[in-house]
Amino acid sequence: MADTSTRIAPPHLGEPYLLTPGPLTTSLATKEAMLRDWGSWDDDFRAMTLEMRTRLLDMLGTGQGDFDCVPMQGSGTFAVEAMLASFLPKDSKTLVLANGAYGKRSVQTLEYLGRDHVVLDKGDYLPPRGEEVAQILADDPAITHVVAIHCETSSGILNPVEEISEATYAAGRKLLVDSMSAFGAIELQPSEIRYEALVSSANKCIEGVPGFGFVIARKSELEAAKGRSHSLSLDVHAQWAHMNKTGQWRFTPPTHVVAAFLEALRAHEAEGGVQGRGARYTSNRDVMVEGMRKLGFETLLKDRWLSPIIVTFFCPADENFDFDRFYQLMKDKGFIIYPGKLTIVDSFRVGCIGQMDEHVMRKVVEAAGASLKEMGVTDATPPAIALEERAKLAA
Amino acid sequence: MADTSTRIAPPHLGEPYLLTPGPLTTSLATKEAMLRDWGSWDDDFRAMTLEMRTRLLDMLGTGQGDFDCVPMQGSGTFAVEAMLASFLPKDSKTLVLANGAYGKRSVQTLEYLGRDHVVLDKGDYLPPRGEEVAQILADDPAITHVVAIHCETSSGILNPVEEISEATYAAGRKLLVDSMSAFGAIELQPSEIRYEALVSSANKCIEGVPGFGFVIARKSELEAAKGRSHSLSLDVHAQWAHMNKTGQWRFTPPTHVVAAFLEALRAHEAEGGVQGRGARYTSNRDVMVEGMRKLGFETLLKDRWLSPIIVTFFCPADENFDFDRFYQLMKDKGFIIYPGKLTIVDSFRVGCIGQMDEHVMRKVVEAAGASLKEMGVTDATPPAIALEERAKLAA
Repeated sequence: MADTSTRIAPPHLGEPYLLTPGPLTTSLATKEAMLRDWGSWDDDFRAMTLEMRTRLLDMLGTGQGDFDCVPMQGSGTFAVEAMLASFLPKDSKTLVLANGAYGKRSVQTLEYLGRDHVVLDKGDYLPPRGEEVAQILADDPAITHVVAIHCETSSGILNPVEEISEATYAAGRKLLVDSMSAFGAIELQPSEIRYEALVSSANKCIEGVPGFGFVIARKSELEAAKGRSHSLSLDVHAQWAHMNKTGQWRFTPPTHVVAAFLEALRAHEAEGGVQGRGARYTSNRDVMVEGMRKLGFETLLKDRWLSPIIVTFFCPADENFDFDRFYQLMKDKGFIIYPGKLTIVDSFRVGCIGQMDEHVMRKVVEAAGASLKEMGVTDATPPAIALEERAKLAA
Repeated sequence: MADTSTRIAPPHLGEPYLLTPGPLTTSLATKEAMLRDWGSWDDDFRAMTLEMRTRLLDMLGTGQGDFDCVPMQGSGTFAVEAMLASFLPKDSKTLVLANGAYGKRSVQTLEYLGRDHVVLDKGDYLPPRGEEVAQILADDPAITHVVAIHCETSSGILNPVEEISEATYAAGRKLLVDSMSAFGAIELQPSEIRYEALVSSANKCIEGVPGFGFVIARKSELEAAKGRSHSLSLDVHAQWAHMNKTGQWRFTPPTHVVAAFLEALRAHEAEGGVQGRGARYTSNRDVMVEGMRKLGFETLLKDRWLSPIIVTFFCPADENFDFDRFYQLMKDKGFIIYPGKLTIVDSFRVGCIGQMDEHVMRKVVEAAGASLKEMGVTDATPPAIALEERAKLAA
């Protein structure tokens, strides 16, 4: 593998790496793109918006001609809500595939929207499988749509969207994908995996800073969404129609965040696009997981389900281990990790995305080892219940 | 007046001044605050959020104890929609005072929300007066709320919120204020002007960069808003409750934009707070309007209605005048102006807000004079119909 040390810029002196699922560590060049002001009405900024949309569509590969890209102000959740409100007709019934916080958030959104839905709730991390989807759709002909989470960062699992898509379209239903934490690092080409729309945001695998998300959807779905949104601000059709007509965002865009994102998109292309970005993240994960396992840590997920985005580790059973202290010790060493979200056993998460490479990940492992020593933890093995829990998952 | 030339940093070489109502020209220090990354979950960022909310509340002066500040991701319109959906009960009836695009946008939002409303539409720029409000409220006891636009940037008018507030509360109704373009430069102290909630955004008179807005509301209204919002993302009560409990934003905040805003808030205080900021903008306006009038330009509004935020000028009647060319000539000279929104006669707007002082405004006037010459316009007088239009307005 090529040495990437010259490509990855370290954060400013004293600034910690963000080993989190976004906001993440971005390049200095990306942040420096924010050192000027733009008029959102002006031609210069309109050209930036167009370039951004074009570059995002290019990531779909062949088949992109049927799709268009609609950026949406706010966090990723705003874009998810916008997608659901715009592409789910008022008389639709949706199957939400949930195995973590983001699946549950889609359910909560449908409750706000008053859209009929059922949930396949797989708990904290078990993947929704194609055969389960097929069965539910066969049993309930009223279901019109399926919502899937591509990478559920609650556990770090990469959900099997291929088989979910196959089951959905085999049953004549439509798929919407929340690819928030995966798009840009994991291929989601409509020529390979069928779907109507996906959603992601600026501050994930494309390594921009937070401030907006984007919906990429079939033009036919965008057309059909007219008049459907519950919200003026989150109306995807209205944003799309206005943007295609005027080149402008309907309401004030986060101009600086857009400029940073454009710089990040150029860097993404220079790194080899989705494949290049995905390869670096995969290497980050492999180096980090191998090192953590050598320290005695255990991953929640078996290898085939580990995403290259973020990895959940069980907290050690050792009574000297205290997560808050571990967090602070890691932060003091320059690494911000992320608390876990499992209900059954204590856990924490380490992200693999952002401006980091395998050299950085080795230092993360070193820091984790040193932090354990400082806490007096000699054995990072999790409690027995954790390993029993993991045994529920297919290899 | 003190010389401000050392206080106002010019934009980067070649970067135009934005004479627009936001996004606007911000200080380099404000933008440089974006040159690092923050974990939104981390203590450091929570402290930044708390400082920001506290500083915003401090601008209310005495009486702030009854209020709290809830930031909201997205553009200012997102925050307005969030405010309306949260503080207008489902069985409410609202009087919207409209004299431009932003009043109309509130009406449109109420249509999306399905909230009953009536509109006092004063056209392009005439101000809604207290006596009109009193009459409408007396005639229609079903009206529960009034929505007013503080500074309507469509024309640049500063609407008379004092008399609107007096009429509203004299009739026992409640007032919500869209102070998007005024808050931070024009006092809106609840001890002087009564209201339930106001809304503004990062990229206006506090001179931050765009990416979020904020609602400042009575705690009693925030409590009452529970379960009322149509939108998960825009739920003000949920954001408020979560933020007060955890110190975190409910969904990913635009971390860099928040950091820039905090820097801008500190500069705002250093300039003398709302009074100091308002004084500079007023000086900007006075110098610019005086100079433009010397060139023959006429303002849409009589002096008493001119805000220190943005000023509308009639386009000259001279057939050599072409707005698109004027825009480009001004841009070439380093100034981005703003097209007008009047329906009856052509106009353009020049903003007074952002990192600019009277020295810059003199250069704006020089550039306008030079641009007229380049176009071969010898007389900037507007068509007679424009002056007839203005005569409709009370002095």
